[in-house]
Amino acid sequence: MIDFLNSTSVAPEFVGADAAGDTIGLCIPNVDPELLEKMHVKKHYSVIGIVSDRTGGGPQLFSMDEGIKSTNTEVIDVEWTNDTKGGGGQGCMIVIGGYDPSDVREAIKVTFENLHHYFGDVYGNAAGYVELQYTARAAGCLTEALGAEEGKAFGIINACPAAIGIVMADTALKTAGVNIISVATPSHNGSPSNEGTLTISGESGAVRQAVIAARERGLELLGQMGDKPANDYPSYIQ
Amino acid sequence: MIDFLNSTSVAPEFVGADAAGDTIGLCIPNVDPELLEKMHVKKHYSVIGIVSDRTGGGPQLFSMDEGIKSTNTEVIDVEWTNDTKGGGGQGCMIVIGGYDPSDVREAIKVTFENLHHYFGDVYGNAAGYVELQYTARAAGCLTEALGAEEGKAFGIINACPAAIGIVMADTALKTAGVNIISVATPSHNGSPSNEGTLTISGESGAVRQAVIAARERGLELLGQMGDKPANDYPSYIQ
Amino acid sequence: MIDFLNSTSVAPEFVGADAAGDTIGLCIPNVDPELLEKMHVKKHYSVIGIVSDRTGGGPQLFSMDEGIKSTNTEVIDVEWTNDTKGGGGQGCMIVIGGYDPSDVREAIKVTFENLHHYFGDVYGNAAGYVELQYTARAAGCLTEALGAEEGKAFGIINACPAAIGIVMADTALKTAGVNIISVATPSHNGSPSNEGTLTISGESGAVRQAVIAARERGLELLGQMGDKPANDYPSYIQ
Repeated sequence: MIDFLNSTSVAPEFVGADAAGDTIGLCIPNVDPELLEKMHVKKHYSVIGIVSDRTGGGPQLFSMDEGIKSTNTEVIDVEWTNDTKGGGGQGCMIVIGGYDPSDVREAIKVTFENLHHYFGDVYGNAAGYVELQYTARAAGCLTEALGAEEGKAFGIINACPAAIGIVMADTALKTAGVNIISVATPSHNGSPSNEGTLTISGESGAVRQAVIAARERGLELLGQMGDKPANDYPSYIQ
Repeated sequence: MIDFLNSTSVAPEFVGADAAGDTIGLCIPNVDPELLEKMHVKKHYSVIGIVSDRTGGGPQLFSMDEGIKSTNTEVIDVEWTNDTKGGGGQGCMIVIGGYDPSDVREAIKVTFENLHHYFGDVYGNAAGYVELQYTARAAGCLTEALGAEEGKAFGIINACPAAIGIVMADTALKTAGVNIISVATPSHNGSPSNEGTLTISGESGAVRQAVIAARERGLELLGQMGDKPANDYPSYIQ
Repeated sequence: MIDFLNSTSVAPEFVGADAAGDTIGLCIPNVDPELLEKMHVKKHYSVIGIVSDRTGGGPQLFSMDEGIKSTNTEVIDVEWTNDTKGGGGQGCMIVIGGYDPSDVREAIKVTFENLHHYFGDVYGNAAGYVELQYTARAAGCLTEALGAEEGKAFGIINACPAAIGIVMADTALKTAGVNIISVATPSHNGSPSNEGTLTISGESGAVRQAVIAARERGLELLGQMGDKPANDYPSYIQ
């Protein structure tokens, strides 16, 4: 092939990339208006940022939630994809808008700074995975993507194969008084992933307690299908 | 990470697991009512069982059909997932209900006892796979999941990539006088899997003959794409 | 297992197969009428041909476009599948119809003759891929499958993860005056693949220039996620 790829150059839109989830963050300072028109964003900004990944949605969304909290930007689209490089879950694409490229770039940088943290409670083995997420205070990314209540505690309980996620959900709901935001199963989900997922809100201690109980149950069950499930980064939900 | 996973414990919901298809079977004796409300089951039982897998639907459904035949339980939901750990097909999740946990556990145990049997006519190579299933008498799982006629012979002819399944379907229909229950192709299926699938009913000898002829054709064609397709367990359709 | 697979025989329907994209081409000279009735073809021919693959849609569709140009056949169905053997894109199935088996077989043979050519601008690494396609004159396959204008220049700009495809689209539209035919993102696509895709028409020089500029940008960005992206066959878009 002709070597038209100059490996020393970097495209101006590039902000960051991380092998965790094969995640890339890009910023288009002055997006083509016709392209923006054909995208499905809820509000038109001239500056858009995109965080896109192969594996995972929770870690990227929780990380971007921190980015949104700390900058003058807004999530204008979240899309799900049946990908995960052969895994049973979903990848995602988050589009944000802002008035200033430096704001959008900053939101993406904050996302990458938090990414390993929010991968801390993703545990896997050859048979599947278990994912937990928790925040004491959800902001605009989690409200837009997952129906979290702004400023309230929010948690995700998720596993593949799907049945493990359902038992974890049952355990969580029996552990603490929390509110169900959504229950997702393979055919009743954004895309037909092999996941059972519960999202919850409520008093922050109760949400955390429910998530921790579900984690213990999920790891026991997934462990019955193969090796002890392992995480790539330290657990953050204590 | 903190070692909160006690590898010697087993969650009370666990019934069984098998590396064939990465299949797990769980029983929730007294499911949280709000969780059950948000699931999409056709009937509310207080005891539910779930068989969930990464790879395969046919073997699990035919195996559960035996479980349903031998216990006082009922299939209340079947969901499909675009998973298969990178394969071209679907995984599935089967939810059953019963009045007694011992019945539900028994149905799941019977499912696992039959699982290798019904994986016997799943043949694969690096390019794809061919799957055949046959029963002389379908019961409640196959009627609920796949539209089989209760008590009648039923067969599945299935392959990936999809074109092979279509030629196999053509061969089957030209071989014996059987009734088409359904024809599925990638865009006209539960989820956009890479499969061509024919399901048939009719006189038991005719259904078996059609399935066997389709198998021969499918293995010839898939063999043209790579190695000779192999099965992991002995063929059961003779 | 019983050795019912005679490895020296070849099914009469077999026309060709190629490891590129795990693609197979088959011809059914006198398709079962009830099967054809249940398929979703736009016109009923007694002779049908099927090209079906695990990985890729663009290369197979552009190759079949050459097959359609050179024979008396017609594309009667194109279906997409969430497969790609664990990749983030789609596989596809193309069904053609004709009056004469030799025409249908010839169209499929031409497809295979062109397949490596149209895989020439598919570049990948472990994190994703970038695909470009270009023709100065689209015919019936591209019009049916992708909305190309018959006889006009047509191009595809496509990448996984999706964000890279969106930046490439933005670059293409800023480079040359071309018409947008479609913009696809994960949730607004035939199936929830992890792709951003732009299809364009216009003056042939402008379309080619837009595609080349997008390729350069896409390779830069994908290269930031891992190894330098590589193609398996020589680039054809110069």
